[in-house]
Amino acid sequence: MTLKRKKISVIGSGFTGATTAFLLAQKELGDVVIVDIPQMENPTKGKALDMLEAGPVQGFDANIIGTSNYEDTKDSDIVIITAGIARKPGMSRDDLVQTNQKVMKSVTGEIVKHSPNTTIIVLTNPVDAMTYTVYKESGFPKERVIGQSGVLDSARFRTFVAQELNLSVKDITGFVLGGHGDDMVPLVRYSYAGGIPLETLIPAERLAEIVERTRKGGAEIVNLLGNGSAYYAPAASIVEMAEAILKDQRRVLPSIAYLEGEYGLQGIYLGVPTILGAGGIEQIIELDLTESEKAELEKSAASVRNVMDILA
Amino acid sequence: MTLKRKKISVIGSGFTGATTAFLLAQKELGDVVIVDIPQMENPTKGKALDMLEAGPVQGFDANIIGTSNYEDTKDSDIVIITAGIARKPGMSRDDLVQTNQKVMKSVTGEIVKHSPNTTIIVLTNPVDAMTYTVYKESGFPKERVIGQSGVLDSARFRTFVAQELNLSVKDITGFVLGGHGDDMVPLVRYSYAGGIPLETLIPAERLAEIVERTRKGGAEIVNLLGNGSAYYAPAASIVEMAEAILKDQRRVLPSIAYLEGEYGLQGIYLGVPTILGAGGIEQIIELDLTESEKAELEKSAASVRNVMDILA
Amino acid sequence: MTLKRKKISVIGSGFTGATTAFLLAQKELGDVVIVDIPQMENPTKGKALDMLEAGPVQGFDANIIGTSNYEDTKDSDIVIITAGIARKPGMSRDDLVQTNQKVMKSVTGEIVKHSPNTTIIVLTNPVDAMTYTVYKESGFPKERVIGQSGVLDSARFRTFVAQELNLSVKDITGFVLGGHGDDMVPLVRYSYAGGIPLETLIPAERLAEIVERTRKGGAEIVNLLGNGSAYYAPAASIVEMAEAILKDQRRVLPSIAYLEGEYGLQGIYLGVPTILGAGGIEQIIELDLTESEKAELEKSAASVRNVMDILA
Amino acid sequence: MTLKRKKISVIGSGFTGATTAFLLAQKELGDVVIVDIPQMENPTKGKALDMLEAGPVQGFDANIIGTSNYEDTKDSDIVIITAGIARKPGMSRDDLVQTNQKVMKSVTGEIVKHSPNTTIIVLTNPVDAMTYTVYKESGFPKERVIGQSGVLDSARFRTFVAQELNLSVKDITGFVLGGHGDDMVPLVRYSYAGGIPLETLIPAERLAEIVERTRKGGAEIVNLLGNGSAYYAPAASIVEMAEAILKDQRRVLPSIAYLEGEYGLQGIYLGVPTILGAGGIEQIIELDLTESEKAELEKSAASVRNVMDILA
Repeated sequence: MTLKRKKISVIGSGFTGATTAFLLAQKELGDVVIVDIPQMENPTKGKALDMLEAGPVQGFDANIIGTSNYEDTKDSDIVIITAGIARKPGMSRDDLVQTNQKVMKSVTGEIVKHSPNTTIIVLTNPVDAMTYTVYKESGFPKERVIGQSGVLDSARFRTFVAQELNLSVKDITGFVLGGHGDDMVPLVRYSYAGGIPLETLIPAERLAEIVERTRKGGAEIVNLLGNGSAYYAPAASIVEMAEAILKDQRRVLPSIAYLEGEYGLQGIYLGVPTILGAGGIEQIIELDLTESEKAELEKSAASVRNVMDILA
Repeated sequence: MTLKRKKISVIGSGFTGATTAFLLAQKELGDVVIVDIPQMENPTKGKALDMLEAGPVQGFDANIIGTSNYEDTKDSDIVIITAGIARKPGMSRDDLVQTNQKVMKSVTGEIVKHSPNTTIIVLTNPVDAMTYTVYKESGFPKERVIGQSGVLDSARFRTFVAQELNLSVKDITGFVLGGHGDDMVPLVRYSYAGGIPLETLIPAERLAEIVERTRKGGAEIVNLLGNGSAYYAPAASIVEMAEAILKDQRRVLPSIAYLEGEYGLQGIYLGVPTILGAGGIEQIIELDLTESEKAELEKSAASVRNVMDILA
Repeated sequence: MTLKRKKISVIGSGFTGATTAFLLAQKELGDVVIVDIPQMENPTKGKALDMLEAGPVQGFDANIIGTSNYEDTKDSDIVIITAGIARKPGMSRDDLVQTNQKVMKSVTGEIVKHSPNTTIIVLTNPVDAMTYTVYKESGFPKERVIGQSGVLDSARFRTFVAQELNLSVKDITGFVLGGHGDDMVPLVRYSYAGGIPLETLIPAERLAEIVERTRKGGAEIVNLLGNGSAYYAPAASIVEMAEAILKDQRRVLPSIAYLEGEYGLQGIYLGVPTILGAGGIEQIIELDLTESEKAELEKSAASVRNVMDILA
Repeated sequence: MTLKRKKISVIGSGFTGATTAFLLAQKELGDVVIVDIPQMENPTKGKALDMLEAGPVQGFDANIIGTSNYEDTKDSDIVIITAGIARKPGMSRDDLVQTNQKVMKSVTGEIVKHSPNTTIIVLTNPVDAMTYTVYKESGFPKERVIGQSGVLDSARFRTFVAQELNLSVKDITGFVLGGHGDDMVPLVRYSYAGGIPLETLIPAERLAEIVERTRKGGAEIVNLLGNGSAYYAPAASIVEMAEAILKDQRRVLPSIAYLEGEYGLQGIYLGVPTILGAGGIEQIIELDLTESEKAELEKSAASVRNVMDILA
């Protein structure tokens, strides 16, 4: 019967981590701890303080602190991992994977030490393999280690559809399976405007273009920014997942979940429809797929396994 | 009886401008146009698109576009100016003022051309002199050219007081007059926790430290970040002012207003308590000041006049 | 470029009208005028004042007044009609229809006189025929006279489905056509949990029970209350429609719209999927129906025509 | 580390109880159980179901049930008591007090049995004496038995002041001590518009009228309604107190608290400024009063003691 505020730790104080922290505080989901490496401690404190100073005006009560000391994350209800590097020109994929794998291992060790009963959501890319790394390193049950990709991919898809039809985004739903970005498997037949299947509202050719734009949605932003990658929509996506868990909402949201036979796949983290509640991933929903959808999902899984093979 | 969405233009796509745009969209205050120079057009478009893609998840319906073409700002209900440069090491104050003055003149010409009936809120530093520049350049009535500083300064003050007393920020109010930052004139006797004067809750010496920390609040963030300045709380502050105007709320908020005799001052933009509603600054509230408060305000005014003297 | 607050008039100060007014004010959609007959003027003023006094605590800025003078509704952006009597034991359907028809005529005359350019939403039962009456009496274009039933019917359906599956209501969508209540035509194949068709998640027999419970959803509340009918969900439903129009959201929502050939029907108000925006019903969406759905819709239309035949 | 939803029980399904339940659900503060006597079980279930059906439209995830079985309240985080009768014409005050005292005793026994660690907020009138009754009957520590009156009284005061000055209610604060209604002790010198003391903005005579109207604020609504009493603002007030506790906000709000020496009073429940957080009343704030304020407070206390003398 304790009414203590919940605590959410965000690992990584870059744009995505910082925006995630701010959106969590706005919703008064709990107090927020932003963690970064010691060299980034001051900027992390600066961002946390700046956010905190927005509280009186935005009307939220949530403490936000920046730190490099994992003791401050003690007994977090949820931990969100955004730490890691982005791929830079000239960097091989293997280098990216192995560098971020090291980051995941180090970060996970600290998280588990201070919050042995928490739930972890991973955003670091390549997200499927990084979620797998955190799962293995944490020793946590699979339902408490979750990756984010489908909420973001479908948010982009919904945005493009809303623009195409000039309708409220509130009434557009989208549905994706598989890996993030290029490996995304959009289930267009499960996507609607006001409940009406998109296939009846948008010509097939145009819909295919929208799907393709969604697959390349991250790259579109990267190319426009010139120097950096998206963070508003990614942060909003991870906050929606965290809210579902913190408020035990039992939302039906796509998550990167550990598969043990579902969809005919074994021992791999991949994007599937799930039910998110207080228990983390409370259920994986299995859908009947068409042959072509199955083929796409297997291709997506193969692509993830290729990355997993690089893991040390 | 038209129910068209309102339109808000934000000039400048830096962190403050972008965050302002996002907070406006979250509140569904209208559609948002972010404007920057042609060289920044792509990054501006990238930020706008990223925000837009957060809409389906955050549940807001607002269009957000990035552009370098002022025609896109046509018939804006409010225009917020965040453009301009920040002072860099080695740059003289005169250089800063004159550079930003040029930016204000150029930006204002474009705003006025496309939205001759709009209301302008200025955030660019040094904000008192820049608001004056926009006022002169626009030819607008004084009530429709407004600068922001007091909402932010008092938000910082309220944050520090809430921490000191371990109370909700919702119940702390603060009150400042005068210029931004160092020139701020805090009216501690008009600042409360749950309606109780702070002077009865916090020892005078400690309260003086909090006031001093508030004055240096911008620098505190700059020093922590190492490379950049605050943007969350500044953006939240300007959004509160814009909301008061867009929703005709008649809020009592401190604004940088053009004084024509109020507080014994003439022909200067300075922070004073105002009523913000559909008409912009609908009233300047004059308070009786103590002798020492009067002296501080005059010092603050003198400091603003020093900057105004640099204006070309 | 006027930023005046919007004005919404609610005709009828009963539970539904009052709750509608309160929910409108909470969302700061505009100032609210509640109108009732002179004998009810004081209670109407009392409810309005009580709501207004909740404003400081709930944090909304909206004026709310109670009146019996239609001049107070002048230049309303939207008018919501909840006035009329409920069917009482022993009252024939014809009596109900003719009594409420008289109320609609009288009310509409007053509305049109003071707000000739407004949009009207009707909630009074039998709602299809009453919307038709208001349309005829007002002389308004059909897109500006709208009835509510489908938002409520699908809200009930979604509630029951969420309970059945133990999932968040946020992820359940429902879809209904036709008349209100018994005449409702649920399109189960367009109803989903997280985008997954309900038919694949709930056995057909159980789904049929949920549909039947939805049809009788109004009666279920009436029977439980013993003395009165539902008002929370009806008010929330009408507010969602009003918000879509006031904020020009172009929501895809079921409305009672005037059909002129759509779905093979002519000269009748019936529930169909529509796009609601600043222009009222901006579009009626026509769906391909199965033979059995067509038959059900025609039965529903026949039932509405039976009521229309009673109209004087 | 359990993320189970919080549970709030509302005793009494009348207008105030029902509205309280709805406002709690809207804010997703937890699942809500509305309890009434067996004879009212069906109407209570009806109201709960109607509210629940508003959830999909209003966008809230909260279960709401109606019951007459206190087992359903098991392990409530907060219990709100609105049960009891209102004074009817011809009923003596003694009858009212003794009847409601019996209700309090019976209700409290059930609450304590099923939620021995909960916090109780009392709204039933005469609220000071009824809170005392619940305190005694529960055996709870004083910080976990709280009465509501000052939040409502000051909300009314703020509403009247906002109207008088034509300003946003967001910027008006009010401050009251003492008993509810007639016994209210308004501290006008601690009441502000945008931080500016009201005494400098409103002539003393007019301010006295506003104070007097506030004192009679409940009666004003009763007289207008003709048949019943206020419930929107009372419900909003109690929800604000509950939110402060459930979210551990440490709000500075006036509560009816048990005094043991504070303000020179002993063994009496009376309205005083308090800090509300996870621990219930975490602190009583003692203010220096003027002689006339002291006299008014003592008169208010005497009036409460008069009612306490009637308690069996």
